[in-house]
Amino acid sequence: MAKHVLILGGNGALGKAVVDSFARHKWNTLSLDLTANERASRSFLLRPGANWVEQAGLLETELRGALQQQKLAAIVNVAGGWAGGNAADPDFLANCDLMWRQSVQSSVIAAQLAARHGAPGSLLVLSGAASARQPTPFMLAYGMAKAAVHQLTASLAGPESGLPPNATVVALLPSTLDTPGNRAGMPQADTSSWTPLPFVADLVHTWAEGKERPQSGSLVSLVTQSGATRIEVSRS
Amino acid sequence: MAKHVLILGGNGALGKAVVDSFARHKWNTLSLDLTANERASRSFLLRPGANWVEQAGLLETELRGALQQQKLAAIVNVAGGWAGGNAADPDFLANCDLMWRQSVQSSVIAAQLAARHGAPGSLLVLSGAASARQPTPFMLAYGMAKAAVHQLTASLAGPESGLPPNATVVALLPSTLDTPGNRAGMPQADTSSWTPLPFVADLVHTWAEGKERPQSGSLVSLVTQSGATRIEVSRS
Repeated sequence: MAKHVLILGGNGALGKAVVDSFARHKWNTLSLDLTANERASRSFLLRPGANWVEQAGLLETELRGALQQQKLAAIVNVAGGWAGGNAADPDFLANCDLMWRQSVQSSVIAAQLAARHGAPGSLLVLSGAASARQPTPFMLAYGMAKAAVHQLTASLAGPESGLPPNATVVALLPSTLDTPGNRAGMPQADTSSWTPLPFVADLVHTWAEGKERPQSGSLVSLVTQSGATRIEVSRS
Repeated sequence: MAKHVLILGGNGALGKAVVDSFARHKWNTLSLDLTANERASRSFLLRPGANWVEQAGLLETELRGALQQQKLAAIVNVAGGWAGGNAADPDFLANCDLMWRQSVQSSVIAAQLAARHGAPGSLLVLSGAASARQPTPFMLAYGMAKAAVHQLTASLAGPESGLPPNATVVALLPSTLDTPGNRAGMPQADTSSWTPLPFVADLVHTWAEGKERPQSGSLVSLVTQSGATRIEVSRS
């Protein structure tokens, strides 16, 4: 029987790559995003008007219907965003809100679903940031949200965190992903240090299959140089 | 002329001690809290119905009126709260919201006010937690919020963070404070490892006077053993 994966942010650039990688290996792919991913087995849509607690409840109801008592073998959160600005920025408070919603709330919902619907030994992947392992004075809101995700990752790996038995939680810490958006936004950049999306997607799929999994709680940095990518595993 | 200090959470247990310490040294003490601190020079009241961006705007208007073009020599955020629970807790999402509002939003507002109204060389004190330097599986929401505050502290100490020239930002990392609430909640506990509030308040006041300030960006753990308290200074 096909294994089930839920991808939060499943119709973004990285989310599409993740859906494709799992689909190629005959997984049942469940996408959550503002828009449908037509290549996913099924798409759940975010409702922009709902608050996140309502949103999480609605999603869980739809998910229960889709799973029919089965469990998720993998939950992958690649939702997120970026905002710059320091404490003197007029948008500082608004950016803190936005980063919290995009990175932290999505990670918290992923963790809750992993606790409730993850199979024993399932995989939970969250999205951190390599930059947030250092001070981030020029992007305060982003750094705070990603630091919170790193702490969540470390904490979920601890005893009695609520995750299923033998679950693995890992945070991906990309530097710059090679997405259409980044190519459009930084047309002059040297892309040889950007991480290709299929590398990330296949890495996540490999872990989901139970192969080469890092220790639970790991922060996995993706380091691309001259077009070649390696991973560096650390702890928060 | 009296120097000005703003204390966020100025009518809580620690906030009262901070107000008293500064008042004893003839500072102009401005308290922000849900209720007035009658011993403060002036109290600004939080409006429970307002969202935090509105709240920050209202506070700033009142603060401008009180300061009359003068600057704050110290901004101290001792607002906060605590919530336990793991990813399987029914209140997980609600607790994440609450911890974010109490610890992170108050710290962000403090940072914004420091950027806009802090004097050169002023002091900004935020409230972290010693426990959140490690994984916090049994209090996920609290750990995430405090990790975000630690990141904010480190980031605000960096170049171009928006703080005034030569400002110092420090996070206090208490373990257990000797408050009436903690005594009521843990009546059987050994209080000899609890940190007395006047120690904390006088420490903050000393830094505000420009004495014995830790390096900007420091996380200052308060370690009390057998009734004696020492500080341990580290970086995030």
